[in-house]
Amino acid sequence: MDDEKETGRVEAFSDGVFAVAITLLILNIQLPPITKLQDDHALWGFFGNQWPMLLAFVTSFATIGVMWLNHHRLFKHIRYVDNTLILLNLLLLMVIVFIPYPTALLAQQYIHYPAGHTAAIIYSGTGIIMAICFNLLWRYASYNNRLLGKNADIEEAQAISRQYHFGPLFYIITFTLAWINVPACIILSLLFAIFFALPLRALFPGNKNTQPHREIERVSK
Amino acid sequence: MDDEKETGRVEAFSDGVFAVAITLLILNIQLPPITKLQDDHALWGFFGNQWPMLLAFVTSFATIGVMWLNHHRLFKHIRYVDNTLILLNLLLLMVIVFIPYPTALLAQQYIHYPAGHTAAIIYSGTGIIMAICFNLLWRYASYNNRLLGKNADIEEAQAISRQYHFGPLFYIITFTLAWINVPACIILSLLFAIFFALPLRALFPGNKNTQPHREIERVSK
Amino acid sequence: MDDEKETGRVEAFSDGVFAVAITLLILNIQLPPITKLQDDHALWGFFGNQWPMLLAFVTSFATIGVMWLNHHRLFKHIRYVDNTLILLNLLLLMVIVFIPYPTALLAQQYIHYPAGHTAAIIYSGTGIIMAICFNLLWRYASYNNRLLGKNADIEEAQAISRQYHFGPLFYIITFTLAWINVPACIILSLLFAIFFALPLRALFPGNKNTQPHREIERVSK
Amino acid sequence: MDDEKETGRVEAFSDGVFAVAITLLILNIQLPPITKLQDDHALWGFFGNQWPMLLAFVTSFATIGVMWLNHHRLFKHIRYVDNTLILLNLLLLMVIVFIPYPTALLAQQYIHYPAGHTAAIIYSGTGIIMAICFNLLWRYASYNNRLLGKNADIEEAQAISRQYHFGPLFYIITFTLAWINVPACIILSLLFAIFFALPLRALFPGNKNTQPHREIERVSK
Repeated sequence: MDDEKETGRVEAFSDGVFAVAITLLILNIQLPPITKLQDDHALWGFFGNQWPMLLAFVTSFATIGVMWLNHHRLFKHIRYVDNTLILLNLLLLMVIVFIPYPTALLAQQYIHYPAGHTAAIIYSGTGIIMAICFNLLWRYASYNNRLLGKNADIEEAQAISRQYHFGPLFYIITFTLAWINVPACIILSLLFAIFFALPLRALFPGNKNTQPHREIERVSK
Repeated sequence: MDDEKETGRVEAFSDGVFAVAITLLILNIQLPPITKLQDDHALWGFFGNQWPMLLAFVTSFATIGVMWLNHHRLFKHIRYVDNTLILLNLLLLMVIVFIPYPTALLAQQYIHYPAGHTAAIIYSGTGIIMAICFNLLWRYASYNNRLLGKNADIEEAQAISRQYHFGPLFYIITFTLAWINVPACIILSLLFAIFFALPLRALFPGNKNTQPHREIERVSK
Repeated sequence: MDDEKETGRVEAFSDGVFAVAITLLILNIQLPPITKLQDDHALWGFFGNQWPMLLAFVTSFATIGVMWLNHHRLFKHIRYVDNTLILLNLLLLMVIVFIPYPTALLAQQYIHYPAGHTAAIIYSGTGIIMAICFNLLWRYASYNNRLLGKNADIEEAQAISRQYHFGPLFYIITFTLAWINVPACIILSLLFAIFFALPLRALFPGNKNTQPHREIERVSK
Repeated sequence: MDDEKETGRVEAFSDGVFAVAITLLILNIQLPPITKLQDDHALWGFFGNQWPMLLAFVTSFATIGVMWLNHHRLFKHIRYVDNTLILLNLLLLMVIVFIPYPTALLAQQYIHYPAGHTAAIIYSGTGIIMAICFNLLWRYASYNNRLLGKNADIEEAQAISRQYHFGPLFYIITFTLAWINVPACIILSLLFAIFFALPLRALFPGNKNTQPHREIERVSK
């Protein structure tokens, strides 16, 4: 019971960071200057040039939202907290807070200089680091059920492990693409975000006969 | 009990987003320049021109506040969480975070160019999208009591469903008015916000003889 | 139990608003320009002129902090939530979010134009509105124990009522002083903030023989 | 149980402040101007000059993160809340919210004027104040087990007390170094942050035979 209280506060702090990071995105969308406001036609023209800003807002919101969904999923299973977990969680949060920067960078460079590769390289490089942080956190917590509850849903925990195997690999592919073809890199990144938003059991129904911890689960039920 | 913990975190994250969005509104109110501060008369004159900013602050605060009240009302009944609900909730939060933008746009264009329709069209268009998101979230959760608790207050759940029927319709009316008469569109929008702030049972006392789930409720009491 | 959950979310949302409002204060403190950074002497000179900013930061932080302490105190007693309470709470939060603005205004005008009264009038006017909002919230919740728990500490609830009687009166005094003597108005405002930070029982030990609800309390213990 | 609810809200408010403060750090990292975005080579050059900003972001994030970890550690033991504790906690939070300012100051002055001592003096001076605030909070709460739970882990509480003894001393050393050698001051500050991030029992295993409260602990187990 003392341990649950601990998890609660790590989650509350993380929720706060995710919530602030996702809401600060709106600050990137600037109001039109007064001169544009004095004429309906000029105002529509202004919004015509504003769309990359709106696109960056929607993409960043979706990215941080899906990351929150994944964080939520991990902490559904994690019950106990130790010093290392808190530090790994802080590392992950630092990358989350940073994500809007490369996203906005990519949206803007692509508008002004579609042939440019720099922003796409930084964007997918950040993706690799994020995938590694998620893996570190989850592998540390789930190794030998270290910090999972005794009644943890082993099937789903293993489905997470399997899905997370692909994370760094996926972002290494987009990182490689960033040097070759920027639009392909962007489209693939969006597809990967959708992949991590899908329900786990739909993706990885689990090979029920080869789970190492099944006995424990059977007993606890 | 595991499921309640899940709802808790979705609510905590949503509360965080609402709280940050509603507080960021103050950033739109700029301090007067130092030259104005050096003279009482000039300072009062400055505030005389600042009032649209203050009005936009109060309107946006009221709008997001009433939306929070509605979100709170829905999650009083929703007990269980699944992947789709989290994604629908993220979609709703994205619209909530965006609302201050069209509100400030409307307040500013109306001051500088009262004959303009663009801002009012964007403002009420955002209202339609918000009403649709609230409906999607609630209909998904309440369909066949999918994610409601077994002891959910069916009367009130149905009162919500009835009230939300009007949402998109209301905003389609204001959207149409935005092309014709901007002040009428603004006044009607405010009246609709008040409508969604009123207690539900006052609005929809419920036709007690025609509720499909009444048996379940009677049993659970 | 369902009702406790409701209070929890109103408190979580309010905590979020207080936390964001109190942290945004740091955004008012600007970093020195690069030219000042290139010389230790110039940098100390810069901080010499920066102190009103720092003072405004500390004053606003203390004000919002004490208001949070008071909000916390009220909700220690409030157990049940209804529609009106949520709306009154939103009204109070709107004033809280607004407070940094008149505080910064006062700090800046006093530096540049010590003879000016405008900022002090707006500052203490905001204080009156805040005191009225706190009274509305508390009187609504505590009237006939409407929303207090059955085991509420009646002594302390009445001590709050007695302390809050003075609130609007206090700020009417500072409001009057703002037209006459600005430094006196500022000093008295700080003393009032300290008054609302003091523990209640120290201030109002309570007249134990005249409490109308004492029987109830005796029974519940 | 009533008291636990109180602690809960102090923690929730503090978590909110920490979360907002740590996320606001990203606002210091500016997007490159459009001219730089139109050329891959110019963009890489821009990032070459941006690195002090990134370094300040990482350092501030680590500092506030470690402070949150310490706050979390203290409140694992603190169960009861009184007026003084809330005021001491507010004082600590004010310093936490302020920390990004001297950190950014130090990062920037060091880039532009490595021989300068001003920023390092302000930075380590803030460190002393922060260490004193942490000590005040903890000593007030733990004195005679005033606000600790009856089942508090006395070993760990005393390990905290021993670790915190060093805090002000450490920062007085960095403060002295700031007048003499800025790089040494920065490196030592980072080492101290690591010291406060280490698990307590690793640092202070505790002299099991000389703990004054061991009897109490033995009984409660």
